[in-house]
Amino acid sequence: MSSEEPDNSICFAELARGCGEWLRGDGPDSDIVISSRVRLARNLAGFAFVSRASADARHHIVQTIRQSLTSDALGRPMQFLNVETLCALDAQLLVERQLISRELAMNDGPRGVMVSEGECCGVMINEEDHLRIQVLHSGLALNECWKEASAVDDQIESQAAFAFHPQFGYLTACPTNVGTGIRISVMLHLPALRMTREIQKVHQAAQKISLAVRGLHGEGSQAMGDFYQISNQITLGRSEEELIDNVMEVVQNIVEWERRIRTMALKDNKSALHDQVARAHGVLTNARSISSEETMHLLSMLRLGVRLGLMDAPEVPTINELFVQTQPAHLQKLHGESLDSSERNLARATWLREKLAH
Amino acid sequence: MSSEEPDNSICFAELARGCGEWLRGDGPDSDIVISSRVRLARNLAGFAFVSRASADARHHIVQTIRQSLTSDALGRPMQFLNVETLCALDAQLLVERQLISRELAMNDGPRGVMVSEGECCGVMINEEDHLRIQVLHSGLALNECWKEASAVDDQIESQAAFAFHPQFGYLTACPTNVGTGIRISVMLHLPALRMTREIQKVHQAAQKISLAVRGLHGEGSQAMGDFYQISNQITLGRSEEELIDNVMEVVQNIVEWERRIRTMALKDNKSALHDQVARAHGVLTNARSISSEETMHLLSMLRLGVRLGLMDAPEVPTINELFVQTQPAHLQKLHGESLDSSERNLARATWLREKLAH
Repeated sequence: MSSEEPDNSICFAELARGCGEWLRGDGPDSDIVISSRVRLARNLAGFAFVSRASADARHHIVQTIRQSLTSDALGRPMQFLNVETLCALDAQLLVERQLISRELAMNDGPRGVMVSEGECCGVMINEEDHLRIQVLHSGLALNECWKEASAVDDQIESQAAFAFHPQFGYLTACPTNVGTGIRISVMLHLPALRMTREIQKVHQAAQKISLAVRGLHGEGSQAMGDFYQISNQITLGRSEEELIDNVMEVVQNIVEWERRIRTMALKDNKSALHDQVARAHGVLTNARSISSEETMHLLSMLRLGVRLGLMDAPEVPTINELFVQTQPAHLQKLHGESLDSSERNLARATWLREKLAH
Repeated sequence: MSSEEPDNSICFAELARGCGEWLRGDGPDSDIVISSRVRLARNLAGFAFVSRASADARHHIVQTIRQSLTSDALGRPMQFLNVETLCALDAQLLVERQLISRELAMNDGPRGVMVSEGECCGVMINEEDHLRIQVLHSGLALNECWKEASAVDDQIESQAAFAFHPQFGYLTACPTNVGTGIRISVMLHLPALRMTREIQKVHQAAQKISLAVRGLHGEGSQAMGDFYQISNQITLGRSEEELIDNVMEVVQNIVEWERRIRTMALKDNKSALHDQVARAHGVLTNARSISSEETMHLLSMLRLGVRLGLMDAPEVPTINELFVQTQPAHLQKLHGESLDSSERNLARATWLREKLAH
């Protein structure tokens, strides 16, 4: 690695105390849309794909990207985190904040991520592809994400040639990404659709038009805390704008649907809903031991209650922060030592009580 | 009825705000023993049993007892409540505070109860027998109960002859009460025995020596809130003192047993227990709607937690009071209007939140 600038100079314990700006709970439709994300898969021309590249080549790729990128599309400085030298806990912390994928954490060899101040822009280096550029925003803001991701893409491309085929478009390690290399995804909070079991229809409707519905941590993850991620599965044969419009339209329909059910629940069943929300608050502020799964579920109820005006505290950004901070690696960082599962349950309960105390 | 002194001059709404002194949570072994009770069944000589007595005779019995009794064994004044003229809700209130039985509330004709200040002594008139004298005390205090019940018994007997047979003893409407006419019972709070399922063994052990184990409201009632009532089933062929010693011995064994399990739980499983207790507190102080059954269960956990020093608030007398006040008739009296089941669930939750607020 370059000896000029030290790697991983950030304090991971400090990092664990905050969360990305894209979790601040504002932006369009933020009653239901947590965040929007655009991710672009790119590979440098003249190098084998990551899985077949030598350590030297991978090292060279890391250096090339680091040198080509100093700030994100909004001019905020970007910092390189060397994932190769991270301990498992710090790598997991980055996974939990969605700065890197599980794959990048688990891979071998030279690799890392560039992260902008505020964590809205990140570039993974040597994950499945040489580059994964991602931009995140709070609320439904796919066009902003795309604009900024595209600007970062241009900035890098101005200094390094990408593997591009005139007919197929951007070449990627996995054929499902070939073409635009774009993955557009929106994280939705859908407690009312889940409670009324309408969520099954969301799955069915999305599948019909080739959109995927997944849990909080993407592929294969459970829909914990009533969070659902909607994303495109097609990347080829359409423009980025068309693909974004397609996701936008579906998401807007789901948002309206969730909103309608929330309104109905408030009208027909307000006191039962209020009871559920208040009990969730009661358990979160009193439990002495609590699992991650129960925490997600109860925070989800609390978020719904605050959004519906049934509770006036805590504020949504606090709840969003707690979703992040109560995950295993965050908890251990906040606690300052490594904890086994039952110790984490105690530490999680303590953290929640302190953060949610009036 | 006598026109000299008005009946039922007490304010039932005011009554609902307090509870009997025997629920104040002190006395011997009060970590586990809620209360002790001795009840004596008596009938006046020269009158048919209640089920066969004319309305006139029953009226006469009421008058005779009222006149023969003005204060309890401790000199505290006794007041007559005319159950015949009570509305159903007020009668239910008296049942919930254990001042009268369900039978007395449901019977027809002249009947009532004399209650001493503090509610430790009560005399039901024209229930199954002409008289049911009961004395209640907080904690394990059967001898005091017996002494005071016996003094009231003597006081009445000094002015009215009882139906007594030299060989059989006191005659009663039901043969199971013939002889001493005594029922000795102790209300125990046994959450640890219930949680560890050892409570089944308590049932088996008690049955072997002809003691009954019942729930909060006696015969046929469920053991809600982990309350179990131990009482004698034999009344004939032994002296009152022998019968009391018998119950005392068994109760002391059960108390030791429950205490041992609590100590073990505190040693081996403190944090899980603390969690359960704290969650119970969280739900009780936050729920917006709560059933009577769930309330009993959670208050029971809270009582255990306070007794084990896991929580420092609320105080045991407050918890005991809440067990009484969250029952249906009490709630309606406290609320000032008649409430259906789901309205009661809301009113119960509101009452609990207010009473348990810091």
